[in-house]
Amino acid sequence: MTDPGDIDAAWLPSAAFRAVGSRRVLVRAGEGPQAGTVHSELAEACARFGGRVVPDGADADLVLAPADVDGLGDEGFTFERRGGTTTVTASGQRGLLYGLFHVVRLGEDAFTGERAREVHRPALATRMLDHWDNVAVHPVMGQVERGYAGGSLFWADGRARGDLDRVRAYGRLLAACGINAVAVNNVNVHATEAHLLTDRIGEVAAIADVLRPYGIRTHLSVTFAAPVVLGGLPTADPLDEAVRTWWAEATRRVYEAIGDFGGYVVKADSEGQPGPFAYGRSHADGANLLAAALEPYGGTVHWRAFVYDHRQDWRDRSTDRARAAYDHFTPLDGRFAPNAVLQVKHGPMDFQVREPVSPLIGAMPRTRLAVEVQATQEYTGQQRHVCWLGPMWSEALRFRPDGSVSAGRLADGLVAVSNAGDDPFWTGHPLAQANLYTFGRLAWDPAADPRAVLDEWIALTHPGAPERLVDGLHAVLDGSWSTYEKYTAPLGVGFMVQPGHHYGPSVDGYEYSPWGTYHFADRDGVGVDRSAATGTGYAAQYAKPWSEVYESPETCPDELLLFFHHVSYGHVLHSGKTVIQHIYDTHFEGVEEAEEARRVWEGLADLVEPARHARVAERFEEQVRCAREWRDQVNSYFLRKSGVPDGRGRTVY
Amino acid sequence: MTDPGDIDAAWLPSAAFRAVGSRRVLVRAGEGPQAGTVHSELAEACARFGGRVVPDGADADLVLAPADVDGLGDEGFTFERRGGTTTVTASGQRGLLYGLFHVVRLGEDAFTGERAREVHRPALATRMLDHWDNVAVHPVMGQVERGYAGGSLFWADGRARGDLDRVRAYGRLLAACGINAVAVNNVNVHATEAHLLTDRIGEVAAIADVLRPYGIRTHLSVTFAAPVVLGGLPTADPLDEAVRTWWAEATRRVYEAIGDFGGYVVKADSEGQPGPFAYGRSHADGANLLAAALEPYGGTVHWRAFVYDHRQDWRDRSTDRARAAYDHFTPLDGRFAPNAVLQVKHGPMDFQVREPVSPLIGAMPRTRLAVEVQATQEYTGQQRHVCWLGPMWSEALRFRPDGSVSAGRLADGLVAVSNAGDDPFWTGHPLAQANLYTFGRLAWDPAADPRAVLDEWIALTHPGAPERLVDGLHAVLDGSWSTYEKYTAPLGVGFMVQPGHHYGPSVDGYEYSPWGTYHFADRDGVGVDRSAATGTGYAAQYAKPWSEVYESPETCPDELLLFFHHVSYGHVLHSGKTVIQHIYDTHFEGVEEAEEARRVWEGLADLVEPARHARVAERFEEQVRCAREWRDQVNSYFLRKSGVPDGRGRTVY
Repeated sequence: MTDPGDIDAAWLPSAAFRAVGSRRVLVRAGEGPQAGTVHSELAEACARFGGRVVPDGADADLVLAPADVDGLGDEGFTFERRGGTTTVTASGQRGLLYGLFHVVRLGEDAFTGERAREVHRPALATRMLDHWDNVAVHPVMGQVERGYAGGSLFWADGRARGDLDRVRAYGRLLAACGINAVAVNNVNVHATEAHLLTDRIGEVAAIADVLRPYGIRTHLSVTFAAPVVLGGLPTADPLDEAVRTWWAEATRRVYEAIGDFGGYVVKADSEGQPGPFAYGRSHADGANLLAAALEPYGGTVHWRAFVYDHRQDWRDRSTDRARAAYDHFTPLDGRFAPNAVLQVKHGPMDFQVREPVSPLIGAMPRTRLAVEVQATQEYTGQQRHVCWLGPMWSEALRFRPDGSVSAGRLADGLVAVSNAGDDPFWTGHPLAQANLYTFGRLAWDPAADPRAVLDEWIALTHPGAPERLVDGLHAVLDGSWSTYEKYTAPLGVGFMVQPGHHYGPSVDGYEYSPWGTYHFADRDGVGVDRSAATGTGYAAQYAKPWSEVYESPETCPDELLLFFHHVSYGHVLHSGKTVIQHIYDTHFEGVEEAEEARRVWEGLADLVEPARHARVAERFEEQVRCAREWRDQVNSYFLRKSGVPDGRGRTVY
Repeated sequence: MTDPGDIDAAWLPSAAFRAVGSRRVLVRAGEGPQAGTVHSELAEACARFGGRVVPDGADADLVLAPADVDGLGDEGFTFERRGGTTTVTASGQRGLLYGLFHVVRLGEDAFTGERAREVHRPALATRMLDHWDNVAVHPVMGQVERGYAGGSLFWADGRARGDLDRVRAYGRLLAACGINAVAVNNVNVHATEAHLLTDRIGEVAAIADVLRPYGIRTHLSVTFAAPVVLGGLPTADPLDEAVRTWWAEATRRVYEAIGDFGGYVVKADSEGQPGPFAYGRSHADGANLLAAALEPYGGTVHWRAFVYDHRQDWRDRSTDRARAAYDHFTPLDGRFAPNAVLQVKHGPMDFQVREPVSPLIGAMPRTRLAVEVQATQEYTGQQRHVCWLGPMWSEALRFRPDGSVSAGRLADGLVAVSNAGDDPFWTGHPLAQANLYTFGRLAWDPAADPRAVLDEWIALTHPGAPERLVDGLHAVLDGSWSTYEKYTAPLGVGFMVQPGHHYGPSVDGYEYSPWGTYHFADRDGVGVDRSAATGTGYAAQYAKPWSEVYESPETCPDELLLFFHHVSYGHVLHSGKTVIQHIYDTHFEGVEEAEEARRVWEGLADLVEPARHARVAERFEEQVRCAREWRDQVNSYFLRKSGVPDGRGRTVY
């Protein structure tokens, strides 16, 4: 690949390949696009660090070869070290590629001592990034909807980029953390983007060709109205024969262009997008229409469950947006085709810094589910604030609907809205690279300790980092999600953000809006009663024990109290503090923690490349400014409402 | 002039000329652009209605002739009727033009009975419309900033319109209500518009040529940084000799292109626009720089007094935006050149539905002042709501700083931000035409009874209107400002609008913003303490008696109470109601009044041209919807804060 020039190497700097590149390596990867990547990666590493690709195994330090064990699947691999030789085996090219990056991650450890054979397989078959990238710049949402890292990696000037080197480098980074699927355009499919499915599929194919060597299948967001807007049919009714034929034919042509095309992503009947409701059909009818078209070719439709009334009347307290996905979809369990995947946001609302896990997850045992998270930090600081989301995602992935510790897995796939763009640091905030990496690794192994993943990321990104740098990065990142939570909306209540762009505080910003996102603060208390006994009944959407845990303020976890209950300002939390004092304390603490993180980062100036250090330092200034704004606005708002002064006498305006 | 086709005739339908057009008319207007208009208007009216332009006065019903009285000035005229002949005389062409439109307004009354000679002169020399029109569409503000009537009359596709028929028709409407000055571009002068001053002055000249026959001088908004951005100078310092030379030369060229050019309008050091502060100079220095350049040619600079800190910290309660204009400008009294006019918004804030009259007006006796109002309904319903502003403007114009009833006049000029665009009804809401007409007539005679002006407008717009239509229009319009005030922000507190676009309610929308527009509502009370004793001291900027009247909640008028004082919800108004009950009552009443106006309008369907009736009816639907939203949000907000239920037990959410 071409050197991407001024582009940050992220977690694949040359030095990360030192251990591998200084060895004698035997590769028997066979033929094919991913095998080619294995060969070229090893050749380049050896050329750089003095190693050698050798023709037989006699004196090899590292052997990559076909597997002699069953059950690895296409992506799994074995790893062992015996008698001075490290061996990776896999049943397929993809497995070898992942095995190679496993060795890279281990570094010198991969070539030290003895290691019994380990079997590595991804826990989730689909590990996907959805790009909310527009081809034509949207007048309000821009090139990348909810993007905070510059323009699109894929699209510029109204077309697929001619130079796809950046996409190639991106694919390589994704392969190194285990991601195997990318949707290349926004789920809100506007007029221009609709054509990617038909007359502009060649542009998608060009991108797919570049991602394929990294084991990544390309997916496309499509509009449910495609038969009408592209095909000229009078209807998009999923039960209409002409519509079915249109989709079958359109999909056939897609596979002519992209033989390993991954499938479609669909946002239907959601925030104004067209869908099956217009024809009196169910979402299973809608999803199965596309599933049938994709089935002959092994494709999958990812059907988003983000269906709710976005024109709610704020006066109506009986309607609860949190209930919507469960109410819409659980009656359809068992009716989705095997190659239809219901893509469910991790929480019932919309990527707030704190939400309960969606009750829809676990409630559809006969439906394939993928869990969707947001790597792009729409509600978590927009890559101007450091907010490492590993702990949040890990918490969600470890949640078990029945309250068990580990039975079953939460879903069949994990999807993140990408946080990457054409920014030189990929993600705007250089430390937000950790979110992208962590997402991939948790999708491979949802049980992984996120802190261990962060160790990997630090070691790869800063090869040979001294302990002070490792400790500093942990100090800045480990608690950053908690810090962000502290200085923003309290106790799970969410959505105290500026309307529209969602950056910065506005306590009442969504309080009288049609979006279904309220906190109901008055002079006596705050929070949403979602109990079954006196509220919207949302709590009863969970199985036991969670339905019972969430039903009562006595058992509901503090951090979700205001999501489930409307309580007085004097209500005493499990922490022993009143709600109002908790609000004051966390907001002061959150700012102090952000200031402390900034201070720690300043102290790392001698250990971090200057451009990277400066970029982060500049963002910390904004984070601290914004955190103070959050603190003061939230505290003032609740002082004015409650009349209760801060117990510690600090300044509240 | 070309028939503007589907364009509404507004207050100059053909039928308005029936009385004049059916007479024998003798015209001795002389030569010149406005004389030409007098001739052509009369010729066209007579051709249509069977009258005749006659060569001598023997059998004339109407004579327009040079004046034989002194002191009429260029724009005044006499009017009398004696022995069956109606006579209009004037010293200049402009006076004859205004005299002609006076006769048109009178209709048959102009030709009935006897009338002693009346002398008509405009009370204010400058009667101006400022168009906040952009040449290049602004990405956020659009073609017309704060425009609610379609695109610009002057500019389209990045240039002056090639077809200026619409501008001609506009000029004619303006002449008929007495407006004599138009600024053709936005006071926020962006990069493209800056060039109108120099290499694009030809486009302005084309517009001026079309407006000239209607007695209208064309003005231009310019950027204070013009010597830098257009002239390539290193500075725009008003005391720099090269800068003075640049402006002199630029202005000389402007007058080469437009001999009767009116002058410049400048927004300096205001909301991000450049100004003299950057060079440590005063606003008198800045204004006088341009005044000196204009002086040789009889031009005027309108220098806006809208200077305040728009990056205020909401935590800082000592800074008061309301004080800003007075604090900035009164120290400069006497230092402005004779051809510099300080253009002062009628209130100290920004065109809210209720503000006190700015204390700056009356505080600069040695400075020429123009009062600026907003015909475009930025904060008064954006031409989706009916809100006739005649009573508001009249109140402001009748205000006397010393508390007297009529001593002196308030200002030397009156300026409105125009509410017109390329909408077929000119103003979006057809009834908003009444605002434009009323503005012109009040600028001519600030002492006029606005209700009488409205009668004129009704009679001209609907010639021969039956009493039911006249009464219906009064019922819809007369109280519409009061209605709008009732259902929006209470008691003068202002700014409870959606940030940015300013349409619809958001009680806390500006509460924690940098814009200096707060209400400080808490659980106990609401309002801004601007008293001298305990507040920001703003009240003391007034002379007596107002400084004393406003100082105390006991004497402050109810409608301004929350502008001047922070009071408890239980505070009893002069009306006998508590503040909180006043909020509830007015909000319920305001909606009921809007509903009633809609009902009245429905009943006029048989008397109003269908397209016009339908347009207004459609806007009433939106007005009522929005008024209910205002009512419910404001009432809910204050119920939640105060905890005080509505005394009449109505639904508050």
